[in-house]
Amino acid sequence: MNQNYIKPDQWSIIEEGFDASRVKSSESLFSIGNGAMGQRANFEEQYSGSTFQGSYIAGVYYPDKTRVGWWKNGYPEYFAKVLNAPNWIGINVKVNNEILDLFTCKGIEGFRRELNMKEGWLSRSFKATLQNDVQVAVKTKRFLSLDLDEVGAIRYEITPLNTDATITFSPYLDAGITNEDTNWDDKFWDVLSVNHDNNQAFIDAKTMKTAFHTCTFMESQVFINNSLVDITPEIESTSNSIIFSYFHNIKQGETFSIEKIGGYTVDCNHDKSELTVAAKKVLKQAKTIGFSGLLENQKKAWTNIWDMADITIEGDVKAQQGIRFNIFQLNQTYLGKDSRLNIGPKGFTGEKYGGSTYWDTEAYCIPFYMATKNQSVARSLLEYRYNHLERAIENAEKLGFTSGAALYPMVTMNGEECHNEWEITFEEIHRNGAISFAIYNYYRYTNDYSYIPEKGLEVLIGIARFWHQRASFSKSKNKFVILGVTGPNEYENNVNNNWYTNYLAQWCIQYAIENIKKVEAEYSSDYIRIMNKVKLSISEIDAWKNVADNMYFPYSKTHQVYLQQDGFLDKDLITVANLDTSQRPINQKWSWDRILRSPYIKQADVLQGFYFFEEQFTQQELERHFDFYEPFTVHESSLSPCVHSIQAAKLDRMEQAYTFYLRTSRLDLDDYNKEVHEGLHITSMAGTWMSIVEGFGGMRVKDNKLSFTPKIPKQWKGYSFKINFRNLILKVHVTQQDTTFELEGHDTLQIEINDTVRILKPNNYENVSR
Amino acid sequence: MNQNYIKPDQWSIIEEGFDASRVKSSESLFSIGNGAMGQRANFEEQYSGSTFQGSYIAGVYYPDKTRVGWWKNGYPEYFAKVLNAPNWIGINVKVNNEILDLFTCKGIEGFRRELNMKEGWLSRSFKATLQNDVQVAVKTKRFLSLDLDEVGAIRYEITPLNTDATITFSPYLDAGITNEDTNWDDKFWDVLSVNHDNNQAFIDAKTMKTAFHTCTFMESQVFINNSLVDITPEIESTSNSIIFSYFHNIKQGETFSIEKIGGYTVDCNHDKSELTVAAKKVLKQAKTIGFSGLLENQKKAWTNIWDMADITIEGDVKAQQGIRFNIFQLNQTYLGKDSRLNIGPKGFTGEKYGGSTYWDTEAYCIPFYMATKNQSVARSLLEYRYNHLERAIENAEKLGFTSGAALYPMVTMNGEECHNEWEITFEEIHRNGAISFAIYNYYRYTNDYSYIPEKGLEVLIGIARFWHQRASFSKSKNKFVILGVTGPNEYENNVNNNWYTNYLAQWCIQYAIENIKKVEAEYSSDYIRIMNKVKLSISEIDAWKNVADNMYFPYSKTHQVYLQQDGFLDKDLITVANLDTSQRPINQKWSWDRILRSPYIKQADVLQGFYFFEEQFTQQELERHFDFYEPFTVHESSLSPCVHSIQAAKLDRMEQAYTFYLRTSRLDLDDYNKEVHEGLHITSMAGTWMSIVEGFGGMRVKDNKLSFTPKIPKQWKGYSFKINFRNLILKVHVTQQDTTFELEGHDTLQIEINDTVRILKPNNYENVSR
Repeated sequence: MNQNYIKPDQWSIIEEGFDASRVKSSESLFSIGNGAMGQRANFEEQYSGSTFQGSYIAGVYYPDKTRVGWWKNGYPEYFAKVLNAPNWIGINVKVNNEILDLFTCKGIEGFRRELNMKEGWLSRSFKATLQNDVQVAVKTKRFLSLDLDEVGAIRYEITPLNTDATITFSPYLDAGITNEDTNWDDKFWDVLSVNHDNNQAFIDAKTMKTAFHTCTFMESQVFINNSLVDITPEIESTSNSIIFSYFHNIKQGETFSIEKIGGYTVDCNHDKSELTVAAKKVLKQAKTIGFSGLLENQKKAWTNIWDMADITIEGDVKAQQGIRFNIFQLNQTYLGKDSRLNIGPKGFTGEKYGGSTYWDTEAYCIPFYMATKNQSVARSLLEYRYNHLERAIENAEKLGFTSGAALYPMVTMNGEECHNEWEITFEEIHRNGAISFAIYNYYRYTNDYSYIPEKGLEVLIGIARFWHQRASFSKSKNKFVILGVTGPNEYENNVNNNWYTNYLAQWCIQYAIENIKKVEAEYSSDYIRIMNKVKLSISEIDAWKNVADNMYFPYSKTHQVYLQQDGFLDKDLITVANLDTSQRPINQKWSWDRILRSPYIKQADVLQGFYFFEEQFTQQELERHFDFYEPFTVHESSLSPCVHSIQAAKLDRMEQAYTFYLRTSRLDLDDYNKEVHEGLHITSMAGTWMSIVEGFGGMRVKDNKLSFTPKIPKQWKGYSFKINFRNLILKVHVTQQDTTFELEGHDTLQIEINDTVRILKPNNYENVSR
Repeated sequence: MNQNYIKPDQWSIIEEGFDASRVKSSESLFSIGNGAMGQRANFEEQYSGSTFQGSYIAGVYYPDKTRVGWWKNGYPEYFAKVLNAPNWIGINVKVNNEILDLFTCKGIEGFRRELNMKEGWLSRSFKATLQNDVQVAVKTKRFLSLDLDEVGAIRYEITPLNTDATITFSPYLDAGITNEDTNWDDKFWDVLSVNHDNNQAFIDAKTMKTAFHTCTFMESQVFINNSLVDITPEIESTSNSIIFSYFHNIKQGETFSIEKIGGYTVDCNHDKSELTVAAKKVLKQAKTIGFSGLLENQKKAWTNIWDMADITIEGDVKAQQGIRFNIFQLNQTYLGKDSRLNIGPKGFTGEKYGGSTYWDTEAYCIPFYMATKNQSVARSLLEYRYNHLERAIENAEKLGFTSGAALYPMVTMNGEECHNEWEITFEEIHRNGAISFAIYNYYRYTNDYSYIPEKGLEVLIGIARFWHQRASFSKSKNKFVILGVTGPNEYENNVNNNWYTNYLAQWCIQYAIENIKKVEAEYSSDYIRIMNKVKLSISEIDAWKNVADNMYFPYSKTHQVYLQQDGFLDKDLITVANLDTSQRPINQKWSWDRILRSPYIKQADVLQGFYFFEEQFTQQELERHFDFYEPFTVHESSLSPCVHSIQAAKLDRMEQAYTFYLRTSRLDLDDYNKEVHEGLHITSMAGTWMSIVEGFGGMRVKDNKLSFTPKIPKQWKGYSFKINFRNLILKVHVTQQDTTFELEGHDTLQIEINDTVRILKPNNYENVSR
């Protein structure tokens, strides 16, 4: 942990002072993105110290050849990885012919880096003394445009402080890049051409195997004291790079600056023969608007995002910074414009983990996007899975399932599996249930049923078929059982009758049947179209129903709790509180077998079911299960504290809820897990949002109505959040004294507050004392 | 399967006709070895077709960097692999300057390969027509000397048939070799020097990391029509190879031949500075004896081995060939001269699987070596584990065990773990029990108790400590349980209370306690020495006893059988007979999860316990368990059919016993599993021997006496085997009519035949009708 490195600030992430050992972690923390592309906060100028270079284009991936110790049937031979794309941000800088390199210069003063989340830009400033004793002041600003999402812009200023000096700016494009996590050192990019045209340069390259065509481009202008100067650059190019050099003698105290616009055009969005044309077009647009104009637009675009998504916390600047960092990174990663994209676990901040889509999206991210954006964004995320349905059916076929049963992959980029641990890939099948749950959750929240007859029902059917086939009948139990699974608690593998999985399987079947009936009754043409496609018979549905009706659930009469899986009570049930702290985190201290036979739980498992299906259980049942399982929970997944925070708040245990909240909200900023150098934990950031809105705010949708039971940690003066509920915008402000509800727009909204129904009037406040 | 490729023969493995697609599998089948080294049957001359080159030195290994998909704590970072050693057999041949290469020549006639098991040599003969239309006849003979086990000898003869021709022999040494199964393409050998001295050449090389120093050497002589000719060779050397070239114009019909002696001296057996000296010394010895003399000695040495180890089968030449192939390969792999060595699963015939030692040695191989060699050989195998005890304790410590608990590795070369699948490496812990069982088995068979106070007791204590710590107390069962294990049936992973494991754990503790008491009473100085070393308290022993006395065993009252593990009866219990044959072998057809949740059993699991501890169960119990489990057993391990064959014979089901026998005895010769090109299944070959001696012959040691219940498959006229029981040699010959026992030597022996005690007189026959 590193609790005092990032300066507390309401709106910015700030680093002060240069520390070479922190360069890689700061590259992650200061990452920028615009939903279409993103990059680590690598320096523009050369840096010879330890660095992790990364620039990523949404949707452009590479199927790396799988690496295993011991092959198991069913593993994917290749799997998609987040792909490092050509570098367009680079600007080498020379001062009197010496390269500016923070790792090798004589001295650095006043190094400061700021990620301004309110306005969406990254800046750096410092004074450096080079080995040639020239001291220079440097200021940079960089952003990836939300408006023109194919471009980013950089302004780089340098001022010689103690002498006149010849300064050279060498902006470049470089396609000679690799992935840090390549399995076999394969080449990922095939460079097709390197071209230039006046101050513009273009590299056409395609990915090997997947053949994504991209054009990486740049255009630069240089200034002395803000006046444009016309310098014809020297141009050098190789087979995979091009570099322009602009040099000028600069007087002491004068400022030489460069504005570089760069980015990517991709054949996902353009004809592959038109990529350079498209690049020239967007460069022209960007140049017309200009760096300052682009920056103004950036501020406006972020203002719009924050206007809807911001959460304020009064009286706790670190908590405020934490929640904004989470919201900011989620928006940098995914904006919901493109249903081919999804929310990668590391977003655009690193390469770790192949693929971009986990069950995190359905279980954790959809509520955030549903409430802070137009509902079309959540619908896009659902459509992403609909578009992968055929692949999910093929995936299930690889594991022996038939007749349209669908198993969505554990990790994916294009619908194909991107993971190869049998206990996860083949057995952590509860992920399939989260995909059905998200359809239910979307309808519950938005009241938009149209998605189900149009697309969702086919997904529900494919998933119900899977569960029907995956369950087997136990003669000895006279019930259907689900053998050999891994639940959300990945610290148990290949267990029988994981309660969460069995419960979800039963629910998926029931929900599919319910919607088949509803679509049959109310959307007959969709019904006919779907039934013709999926060939579903009454007898098959009866067989599903038989499985759901006779599903086995492990239960302890002694403890009056559902058991996480068969045999859970055979474990040596020593609580985490009684585990020596030297043994933690167990995933770093213990061998895997020891973890597996221990009672320790990585993240909510039975309690995940209580979170999803809260209304099916009484408060007393929740309390009993929380009291039984939480004491064994080590929360070694970034997805664990948020669910527990929400449940602790529901149980009125506000101190515990607050502790869990802190753990989730500043996970990366304070580098709790000592791994932020690899990238950020993007998907769990949505859990942080849920901790406040669903946990402290107590927001639910019940009986087709929004409801709240607002609570507040004693450490805070107040907090507020805003949500879009069925196109009505509601702002909620909670203080120690009262809660204020403010409804925008023109319509009234009926909500429940602490179980009392109230009618909110538009453009009006409703105060409820606490 | 490939049942008609190898020609049936009593004593030889014979291949007729050249088939390039079978080169790799024949390279495995015709492998030769002498316990100290071994090699695949690669051609001496160049071969440009598909081939798997391999020459291996016993005890010389390389710790390759582990490759995994996803790392788990506790995995070994490096693990030892069988290492391909420098090639000394190579002899390039040119005919009128064209290279002789069976893959590229115009035609091949009369290709014949023979592995003569009776005399221990490999030969090849063929006529080849080269692209230059010269036809040559070639005859080769090669063997690795049992007497001088650092050398092998090759005679290579070539006769131009249709013209005079200039023939060049270019014998060479080549240390520029690699392993086929290298994980990271690392270099394994560091060549120190390449030297020559007259007709001798030497390459000094050491292995990277492990620094095994070796000298690979050769010396050649050439002959025309058997007359030595003195040709000064041309010598070329590179940094890692040396090649001598002898050429001569040979008349049509004349024979040009070369005798090459080569091999390795290794610093396991010599000072590393003396390796070339040692090589010269052994070359001198070999040259003095000469090729023909060496070959004569080879025949004598094999005669001695066969005299003790042979099993004859009358009336079934394929069964005869099969059992001799098994016995031959076991003796080629391990002769028991060196307690640093062990019996690798592929012997010297391939690289697959890291390490050389599995529980196969204790469970399957020791009975064979115990009965067919001097008992010192079995004792050497026990000492191998004693010598690794410290490493086994370290291995257990890595998994969180303390205070001298020992967990022997799943696979090892030097005592360190050589495997990295968590479900095997960390969980297939029953292997530990086999090591204690082998100590018991050795004492039972040899009556040599001295091993236990001298060495074995420390091993028994380390293993008992492991089981005590590995079991945990289940409050809900009020018994000790062993959670998270993989039994011998590797088609179940991470199960709870595998009956075999729990039974073995209980037995190991009981046997350790029994021997502690006996050593205390009868070997007090050993007792004091050991107790001072292991620091064992009475209270610790009491704690062990508490675990053993209160061990939980899953049992079904309905079926009256012990259950393979908790929850076995929840499976969908469809027998193998009712499984569509298109689904088999399931390990090739099904994904891993499907295998795991199926009831199918890879190899004896509960029945392995019934095999080890037969006397603890009634015949009715055996029958009930056999009838319950065998129908679910797919026998997809080479170790499965032998145990079932023995038990079927015991149950008087001779047809079934014979079917299992066939499956084990010609597994490789008929390539049942289509993988013989990777190497042979050496350890399971000992199971074939057991199928006859223990299965058909019904040999046991009961109450300190040998006992037999001889049976015979109806397909055979008779069979015979010989055993060394406590230094008395007994030959048993079973026919359809009677059984004859013939005792060698000077002492009488009391044995039980079909439950009747008889006294055998020395040098006499005892006939018992059937």
